[in-house]
Amino acid sequence: MQKPTIAKGTRDFLPEEVKKRNFIIQKLKKNFELFGFSPIETPSFENLSTLTGKYGEEGDRLIFKILKSGDFTRKIKDWGAGAQSLATQISDKALRYDLTVPFARFVVQHQSELIFPFKRYQIQPVWRADRPQKGRFREFHQCDADVVGSDSLWQEIDLIQLYDFAFHDLEIPTEIHINHRKILAGLAEIAEIQEQLIDFTVALDKLDKIGQDAVISEMKEKGIQENSIEKFKPLFHIQGTFDEQLNQLEEFLKPSEIGMQGIEDLKFIQNKLKNHQFLSSELILNLTLARGLDYYTGCIFEVKAKKVTMGSIGGGGRYNDLTGIFGLKDMPGVGISFGLDRIYLVMEELGLFPTQETRHFKVLFIHFGENEASEAQKYIQKLRQAGIQAELYPEDAKMKKQFSYGDKGNFSHVALLGEDEIKNDSLAVKNLKSGEQYEIKQANLLSKFNELKEIFYKA
Amino acid sequence: MQKPTIAKGTRDFLPEEVKKRNFIIQKLKKNFELFGFSPIETPSFENLSTLTGKYGEEGDRLIFKILKSGDFTRKIKDWGAGAQSLATQISDKALRYDLTVPFARFVVQHQSELIFPFKRYQIQPVWRADRPQKGRFREFHQCDADVVGSDSLWQEIDLIQLYDFAFHDLEIPTEIHINHRKILAGLAEIAEIQEQLIDFTVALDKLDKIGQDAVISEMKEKGIQENSIEKFKPLFHIQGTFDEQLNQLEEFLKPSEIGMQGIEDLKFIQNKLKNHQFLSSELILNLTLARGLDYYTGCIFEVKAKKVTMGSIGGGGRYNDLTGIFGLKDMPGVGISFGLDRIYLVMEELGLFPTQETRHFKVLFIHFGENEASEAQKYIQKLRQAGIQAELYPEDAKMKKQFSYGDKGNFSHVALLGEDEIKNDSLAVKNLKSGEQYEIKQANLLSKFNELKEIFYKA
Repeated sequence: MQKPTIAKGTRDFLPEEVKKRNFIIQKLKKNFELFGFSPIETPSFENLSTLTGKYGEEGDRLIFKILKSGDFTRKIKDWGAGAQSLATQISDKALRYDLTVPFARFVVQHQSELIFPFKRYQIQPVWRADRPQKGRFREFHQCDADVVGSDSLWQEIDLIQLYDFAFHDLEIPTEIHINHRKILAGLAEIAEIQEQLIDFTVALDKLDKIGQDAVISEMKEKGIQENSIEKFKPLFHIQGTFDEQLNQLEEFLKPSEIGMQGIEDLKFIQNKLKNHQFLSSELILNLTLARGLDYYTGCIFEVKAKKVTMGSIGGGGRYNDLTGIFGLKDMPGVGISFGLDRIYLVMEELGLFPTQETRHFKVLFIHFGENEASEAQKYIQKLRQAGIQAELYPEDAKMKKQFSYGDKGNFSHVALLGEDEIKNDSLAVKNLKSGEQYEIKQANLLSKFNELKEIFYKA
Repeated sequence: MQKPTIAKGTRDFLPEEVKKRNFIIQKLKKNFELFGFSPIETPSFENLSTLTGKYGEEGDRLIFKILKSGDFTRKIKDWGAGAQSLATQISDKALRYDLTVPFARFVVQHQSELIFPFKRYQIQPVWRADRPQKGRFREFHQCDADVVGSDSLWQEIDLIQLYDFAFHDLEIPTEIHINHRKILAGLAEIAEIQEQLIDFTVALDKLDKIGQDAVISEMKEKGIQENSIEKFKPLFHIQGTFDEQLNQLEEFLKPSEIGMQGIEDLKFIQNKLKNHQFLSSELILNLTLARGLDYYTGCIFEVKAKKVTMGSIGGGGRYNDLTGIFGLKDMPGVGISFGLDRIYLVMEELGLFPTQETRHFKVLFIHFGENEASEAQKYIQKLRQAGIQAELYPEDAKMKKQFSYGDKGNFSHVALLGEDEIKNDSLAVKNLKSGEQYEIKQANLLSKFNELKEIFYKA
C-alpha cells in the first residue's frame, strides 16, 4: 500500500480547470485558423540527437532523457565515463523541450508534402527539468504559430494582427511590444560595443524595473566603457508616438547600415498597420526588448496584459534559418507564441472566464426506486438526444444524499419523477439555485426544458 | 548537419490528419459531457513507483523510464546490478502507460475535492515501449470514461447508452458485445476448472476465428480434461435472441452461485435497456468475450464496427477496487474506452469524415504590389472579423505561383484587387474549383461572402 504522490513540478487538472484551459485553447485555435494557420502535431519524444545541442548547454541539461528499453547496460564499457557521456549511451530518446526544433525536423522530413509559405500552429505540452517554483512547471503547454518559407514583412504584420484578434477574443487588453534585432545591433555598432551586445541588451532590458542609473551601473560593471555609454545615452530620452520615436531613432542610427535596415522594417510594418483598426491592443516600440537574441534575426515581439502585473503573456520574432541544422537551407520564418498558463492567471485575475465554463445547465433525475428509475431513463434519453445534459442518480439513496450530489455536482436542476408524476405523464423540476419549481408535461418536455435553459443562462 | 528522423514507433500528424482526429475527439467529448462526465488531465509522467508493479511483468518492461536529471551516477554503488535494478536507481519517473493508474492516483489525492460517484473522462496520450508494427505505436491516445464510487448497475446501462450515442454521432453502426466475469467464473466452476479459468477463456475467445473443434483441441493441450469439456459443450449451441440465450445460460448455470450473480446482472441491464431505443448499435451477449480478466470483476464490454474488418474499437468493464493499491478502499468503478486510431481507420474506410474537414471556405488575396496589398489588408480584416478565413499572399510574386499556392493550399476562392477594382470599390473573386467569377462591391462584402460560403458548402 502506497501513499500516492504526483511527480515534482507537474500538475493534475480538475474538471473546472480543464474547461477553462480549453476555453482559452479553443479561442486560440479559432483565431489561428482564421488567419490561415493549420494544426500539426509531433510526437512527445524525439531521437535524442534531434534535440541535443539545439538549446545551449543549459538547455541540454534540462532535457528529460528516456532510458533505452531492454537491457540498456549491455553495450556500456566504462561506467565511470560520467553522467553526461553515459546518458547518451543509455538513452536514445528525449521529451520535447519546445515546439520549434521538432517543427524544424517536421518541415525537413515533410518538405515535399507541404506548400510554402507553410503556416502551422501547434498546441502541445513540452517538458523541462527546471527546478520547480511558483508558476514554473516541468510540464506545460506551448501554443505556437509560425510561418516558414517567406521573408515578407507582411507576415509580421499579420502576426501582430493575430495577437490583436486573439487577445481581443479573450477580452484581454494588451500592449504588443516590438523591437528589432538589427536596431539593437545598430545601437551596439554606434557605441562600438558589438562584442558586448548581449551584456548591453540584458542590462537595457531592466530599464523599466531598475531605472536608468542602475542600468548604466550594470553596464559599467560588465565592462562597457564610459564613452560608449555616453554615445547611446540619448536613447533614454526618446519620446512621443510610435512614429515620432522611430524618427528620433532613425536620426540616431543613420551611421549604422544594419541599424537602418531595422528602422526600414519597423517603418514598413508600422505604416501598413495604420490600416488595421486595433481591436484591443496597442503597438509599442520598446528598444529595451531583447528576447531570444541567440536565434531571432529580425523583429522581436512581446505581449503584456494591461491592468495586471504579470510577465509577458506572449512573444516571438523572426529567424533567418529554421531548418539549416537539419540540412535544409534558406528557410526563413517568423512566429509567435501564447503563454497558456499566464493567460489563464490573467483571465482569473480579471474575471474573464464566462460563467458557462463553471455553471452548467444540467438535470439530475432523483432515484425513487426501480420502476421510477426506468421511467426516468426514457426522459433522460429524450433530453440527451436534444443535447441536454441529464443523468439519473444511480441508487435509491436517501433524498438528502441525492440532493446533496445535485448541489455539489453543480447541477442546475433536479427532476422528480415519482408515482404521481408517472400517473400524470409529468415531471416536477426544481431549480437548485432559485428554488423555483415547475411541473412539466411530457408532451412539452423539450420546449419547456429549452425555455428553462434560456432562463438559466440569462440569470 | 543532421538528416532528421522521427523516433521509432511515433508519428507526425499533418494538418488534415489533425483535423480528422479532432473531429472524432470533439464528438466523443460532446457525448461524454452529455452523459455527465467531466474532463480531467494528469501529467505525462508519474513517479516511477506509482506505475511499477501495476501492469504485470510485461507491463513493467514496457514502461518508458525517464533518466534522473543532474548527476544520476552519483549514488550508484554497483554498476553490475543489472538493468532492472539499475533502472530504479537512475530513474525516478516514467511516462504514463495507461490512463487508469494515474486516474486511481488522482482519485486518492483529490478525494476530498471530488463528489462521488465521480464521473470523469480523459483523452490523453500514453506511451508503451512495444515493438512497433503496423497499427501499433509507441505513443497513442486513450479516450476513457469512468464512474467511480458506485456499484449500481445503472452505470453499466448508462455506459452502453453512451457507446450507442457516441458511435451514432460518428455514424458508425456497431455491435456492443457484453459478457460478465462471474458468468465465466460460473462456467469454470461447473466444469470444475476454476484453476484454469485463464486458459479456458483464452481458448474460448478464439471461437469465432478458429471454430469449435480447434478451440477444444487448444483446451485439451492446455490440460483441460475431456469430462470438463463435455460439461460446457452445450454452451456452443446456445442460440436465439439476447433473452433466449440468457434463459438457456441460466438453466446451465443454476448450480453455480457466482454464475447466477452474473446472470442476474445481465438480466437487469438487458431488461432496463428495453427502454432505450438503440440509435445504431446492437447489444450482443458474447460468452467468448474475456478481456481484462485480471482486473475486471463484473460486466465486460467490447465494441466492434459493423461492415468493416477491424479489431475492437472500444472496450471496458467493471472493477471492484480501483484505488486499493493506493490505500483507498471500497472504491468500485466501471469504465469504457474508445480506440481513437481504429475509429479513425474505420471512418476512413467507410468514408465518414465530413467534407468540411478537408474542404475549407477560405480566400486568398492575390498580391499585386504594395499599394494593392495595403487595400487588400483592409478587406481581409473585415472578412476575418466576420469569421471568414482570408489571407494575403505575402509577396508580389508571379501570378502563376500565387494561384498555385491557392490551389495546393486548398483555398476555395482567390480575390483579385488591382488598380481598376480599387477605383470601383470592388473585388473580383474567383471560385478555384468551378472557375466561376464574381464582382463584389465593397458595400455588399459580407453579405456576398456569406452567400458564396453557403453555395460552397452545399456544392
